[in-house]
Amino acid sequence: MSAAAHSGGLRVRIVGTGLIGASLGLALSRKGFQVSLDDPSPTAAALARDLGAGVLAADAAIEDAPPDVVVVAAPPDVVAAVVARELSRWPDAVVTDAASVKGAVLTALQDSGVDLSRYVGSHPIAGREKSGAVAAQAGLFEGRSWVVAPGPRATAGAVDMVCHIAQAAGSAVLVMTPDEHDAAVAAVSHVPQIAASLVASRLRNLPFDAVALSGQGIRDVTRIAASDPSMWTQILAANAPAVRRVLESLAEELEAVLLALRKLESDPDGGSVGARAVLARTVADGNAGQARIPGKHGEAPTTYATVIVVVPDEPGALGRLLRDVGDAGVNMEDLHLEHGVGQPFGLAELSVLPAAVEPLVAALSSLGWPVHD
Amino acid sequence: MSAAAHSGGLRVRIVGTGLIGASLGLALSRKGFQVSLDDPSPTAAALARDLGAGVLAADAAIEDAPPDVVVVAAPPDVVAAVVARELSRWPDAVVTDAASVKGAVLTALQDSGVDLSRYVGSHPIAGREKSGAVAAQAGLFEGRSWVVAPGPRATAGAVDMVCHIAQAAGSAVLVMTPDEHDAAVAAVSHVPQIAASLVASRLRNLPFDAVALSGQGIRDVTRIAASDPSMWTQILAANAPAVRRVLESLAEELEAVLLALRKLESDPDGGSVGARAVLARTVADGNAGQARIPGKHGEAPTTYATVIVVVPDEPGALGRLLRDVGDAGVNMEDLHLEHGVGQPFGLAELSVLPAAVEPLVAALSSLGWPVHD
Repeated sequence: MSAAAHSGGLRVRIVGTGLIGASLGLALSRKGFQVSLDDPSPTAAALARDLGAGVLAADAAIEDAPPDVVVVAAPPDVVAAVVARELSRWPDAVVTDAASVKGAVLTALQDSGVDLSRYVGSHPIAGREKSGAVAAQAGLFEGRSWVVAPGPRATAGAVDMVCHIAQAAGSAVLVMTPDEHDAAVAAVSHVPQIAASLVASRLRNLPFDAVALSGQGIRDVTRIAASDPSMWTQILAANAPAVRRVLESLAEELEAVLLALRKLESDPDGGSVGARAVLARTVADGNAGQARIPGKHGEAPTTYATVIVVVPDEPGALGRLLRDVGDAGVNMEDLHLEHGVGQPFGLAELSVLPAAVEPLVAALSSLGWPVHD
Repeated sequence: MSAAAHSGGLRVRIVGTGLIGASLGLALSRKGFQVSLDDPSPTAAALARDLGAGVLAADAAIEDAPPDVVVVAAPPDVVAAVVARELSRWPDAVVTDAASVKGAVLTALQDSGVDLSRYVGSHPIAGREKSGAVAAQAGLFEGRSWVVAPGPRATAGAVDMVCHIAQAAGSAVLVMTPDEHDAAVAAVSHVPQIAASLVASRLRNLPFDAVALSGQGIRDVTRIAASDPSMWTQILAANAPAVRRVLESLAEELEAVLLALRKLESDPDGGSVGARAVLARTVADGNAGQARIPGKHGEAPTTYATVIVVVPDEPGALGRLLRDVGDAGVNMEDLHLEHGVGQPFGLAELSVLPAAVEPLVAALSSLGWPVHD
């Protein structure tokens, strides 16, 4: 790889111009990379071109200037085949992919017998609930993690090149093995998705009045249950071994909880101390796991205090509140909104550093906000 | 019950002056009810008194003016005993409780042989992550649901009285049987709590880099996993039969998912069509369940569009944004904040009615906000 390669004049070929591919084209084009776009659907490629994601590969004088890097942003079930094709077609290019599962792609490529020194799998942890180039954003990768997961045969130069692309798109790079990646996403993404779906599924046949008791808790737990079934089938199938392992350990603890509940059911008052201990340990273990999720900016988790403010349900009310919070010199770490049932107002729960609670409550109260800490 | 009773001059005795009891005292005192407070801890009762929740029962000329209604807001494991005592002590009063499980309390009372015509269990769906009178809020019940769950012997007059108290506190009343209530909270609260704990528990032994891949999905799913183990042990134990039933149906589907994953693991490419169908159906069933959760103000769920804005991480930035949203005449339905990894900014995801997207994007863009729809 030449020195010029790192100066941003790199030629990047993007294969697959859906949300991820088109967004990456937008981001890299703005940074001065020479981006060419290819897609099995000429219409999809043309749309990405029109949005400013790059030039069409068909129009690029490509035989004279082959790509330095190829990024395959294709659906999970065809990624390995497309990567193999691109490796053969561009014998000097580094090839990466953006699939959300890494081990299965690498295994398929190893089975195919292609030279894997120039292949480095990767996974930008970014996405939207919308799909297609029409939803593309140059900023999609900014501030997100981007896992670079080289196989055993990848060269250091190829790894550096893929890291460079991820950083140019604005992401923070994490290098790990494909297996480490797959175990990680099984635990932090794929199993939570299954759990959310299974919890939400319980509501299907519940009476209307019962569903009406839904509070913020179940809303949060089931938000991702609205995800696309066909996309998730591909992801879960491709990461079956890692998901199976995490889900088995979950199922084991679930069985212990069920056993404890059955004991308490048959003997509510009596010697069910052991059963209560199982329930307490389950919730306590959840406390410990939840506390490990990094806070803002990837720093260690911090405990925030909350201040609750009653906000009338009218345009601008929340904006006025948060402007007043800003005027008080307080930086909010998080914000949850809860809408009242049958009431013309909602509750805003502001998370702030504990030391900020007192001045914030004083400032907001003096401005007439109904506030509770 | 006299006509005066409904005019707000009711005498309400609150037994248990923690978060729920003290908040109810504050709410009813402001509405002109005559509230007296009792608690096994004189200090706790005095604190609630000092906050304005009512007068101390010890100070009230109580023998001359017995309560019309007694609200027992005691910890779940002593509720039934306290209700029985209050029923005996005040032979003309309606007695209710605020425990989050209803069947177990009623069964215990039936076993005790007290007259249950004046007892009507209830459950205000309100709470905070803080506890004790010190966290009390007069507005705690405003806009929340309050389930009134009479047993078979409760009189219509007693039911009306408890509904009246709930409405006076600002809640929307839902009348259902104790069993219906317990099945409902098992599905919309207790099982989601267990699921969140079990998902969060998977993170305990994950490497730091793996936990670092946590996105908004797992944050949402595990938010309630931070709940108090001892309180939840009491709740789950008291509702063991209903929780067991919902959890068993979840465990059954979980086993089907595991079976599908094992099939895909042993035969990734081959005849695993049935296995993929199980995964797709699981996610699709979750879609259907999640879509039943009522939207804002208890109305039917509405599909909102999202607009994403890049917000610098500095005091007041979010406030400026939301003031600008308000100035654009747009009402936000919801707001999610996502903090960038290693970046001095975050992403604000605004949920608005679909028709509001275009004017909102135009207005914010013209003010210089980096915005994506």
